[in-house]
Amino acid sequence: MKVLIIGGGGLVGQKLARSLAARGTLRGQAIDRLVLADIVDPAPVAAGFPVDTRLCDIADPASVAAAVDADVDVIYLLAAIVSAHAEEDLDAGLRTNLFGTLNVLQRCREIGTCPVLVFTSSIAVNGGDVPQPYSDYTALNPQTSYGAQKAMGELLVTDFSRRGLIDGRGFRLPTISVRPGKPNRAASGFMSSIFREPLQGETANCPVDPDFNHYYLSPRKCVENLVKAAELKAEDLGRNRCMVMPGRVWTIAQMIEAMTAVAGPEPATRITWNRQPELDPILKGWRMDVRAERAEALGLEADASFEDNIRYFLEDDVARG
Amino acid sequence: MKVLIIGGGGLVGQKLARSLAARGTLRGQAIDRLVLADIVDPAPVAAGFPVDTRLCDIADPASVAAAVDADVDVIYLLAAIVSAHAEEDLDAGLRTNLFGTLNVLQRCREIGTCPVLVFTSSIAVNGGDVPQPYSDYTALNPQTSYGAQKAMGELLVTDFSRRGLIDGRGFRLPTISVRPGKPNRAASGFMSSIFREPLQGETANCPVDPDFNHYYLSPRKCVENLVKAAELKAEDLGRNRCMVMPGRVWTIAQMIEAMTAVAGPEPATRITWNRQPELDPILKGWRMDVRAERAEALGLEADASFEDNIRYFLEDDVARG
Repeated sequence: MKVLIIGGGGLVGQKLARSLAARGTLRGQAIDRLVLADIVDPAPVAAGFPVDTRLCDIADPASVAAAVDADVDVIYLLAAIVSAHAEEDLDAGLRTNLFGTLNVLQRCREIGTCPVLVFTSSIAVNGGDVPQPYSDYTALNPQTSYGAQKAMGELLVTDFSRRGLIDGRGFRLPTISVRPGKPNRAASGFMSSIFREPLQGETANCPVDPDFNHYYLSPRKCVENLVKAAELKAEDLGRNRCMVMPGRVWTIAQMIEAMTAVAGPEPATRITWNRQPELDPILKGWRMDVRAERAEALGLEADASFEDNIRYFLEDDVARG
Repeated sequence: MKVLIIGGGGLVGQKLARSLAARGTLRGQAIDRLVLADIVDPAPVAAGFPVDTRLCDIADPASVAAAVDADVDVIYLLAAIVSAHAEEDLDAGLRTNLFGTLNVLQRCREIGTCPVLVFTSSIAVNGGDVPQPYSDYTALNPQTSYGAQKAMGELLVTDFSRRGLIDGRGFRLPTISVRPGKPNRAASGFMSSIFREPLQGETANCPVDPDFNHYYLSPRKCVENLVKAAELKAEDLGRNRCMVMPGRVWTIAQMIEAMTAVAGPEPATRITWNRQPELDPILKGWRMDVRAERAEALGLEADASFEDNIRYFLEDDVARG
């Protein structure tokens, strides 16, 4: 069993790699090789099997061919240009999110073994003038270029699966919080930084009101769901390979209360509240009343409480250093 | 007012060109030039203003740049690789239906004048395991590569419109019947030929059962709707620029009765009934209980009866020769 993580240098890719290293198996088989590919050289991960790291720009078909070995069994396609970046630079988003996804799928077709491919889409595919709640059968109506490109990726994953060229499954990731590390270029960056920084003694700004609500998942649960995603049977997926990953809707106020319940009152005092109206066009285009019924029926799970998200961050990231 | 029809050599493009020639105006302005572009040189159309014909392969950005003049006001993007062809040849479909659409949108962006762009999608975007009826808010779940590529085109049209690069509007065309001329490579070809050929003294085969139902529109109403589509105001379109074009659901049996009501009993006897199970994977993936509420509210219309479709064919195509 050979596993490839494209985007293996990112937050989710690295945590997924460590989880696979700890498990040692996937789809009931021993993992005998893991490849981490990314646009910048991914950090190596210790495992009981060989782990390679490779440079890969998915926008370049030759780079994809070099990164995707013909004997790969499971591919995670996590690489993307995120929301604010794709909004600033339409061509960069199209190159990576649309053509890059297609390049990976075309490489799978070339290999000819119908590998399992787990694609990460985003709740940014939801938005605009569409009735809520969002079920698995609601029209996608993205109000960002990132969302539009992810929705196109979903269509490709389903079509290539229908044609038997891949065994694809795509999941619309909730906003991941609490993310460790540095902020990325996602408009949702503050949804982690207002916990991450205060929990480590620093200040952070919240650019929205306390009643702003959104759909969240912890990195730990996200990785657990991605492992399950690879293990789902093709016949359980039906004729649309893409769906929402379970998450939970919380307001900023609820999340801060959860931080206080876990870590005491001090961190919340380190949050500043300067509105950033330039983020509104992206943030107000999102729709957050999401029902992940298909994924829940397939065994994927949300966090039980936001206290859990805070605890997972302290255990998995702060304690780990 | 300069109008460009990409796909101007096809059935709908030619009828649209003749309609624009007869009207002489669009969006309240006199048309002073019409350009017909297609992959094979389009037939010229007589009009009270100059009509150019041009070769254009939308899969080639240079060809698109040469066909789309910087002073164009309204573009109709009708060109496509149709269902059975795109299913046979995935790359040809991606080249024309996905990259070709993107090439035209990128050319509009380069021009920088935010031209009106009318995009023809297809009811082939519907399908699979999705509850019916299909409203304007139901998830697209195409079960053909053609449908997947058209759904991606819709996402691009909405995103480029949101960014102010085009003033786009897209309509999912019902199956057009009765189509004049030669069959094309669409799996739905028989839905015209079983009327067109018998009404002109020839035999034609129906490969499905009489109770097979589908969603139809006459060429005449389709062209009327495409003219209205260009004239809609951007502010009436909202945050999803694409929707179903009104049509009507008929069974094969109802349509044959309509032919008999208009043209007597003789034509129906010229239909043969040899099933073609090789078409089933495409035909059975379609879902036909479609509600075109948004387009109807905007003033677009279906045919009143299938007798009308038969009469329009006799008036517009057979009598015209």
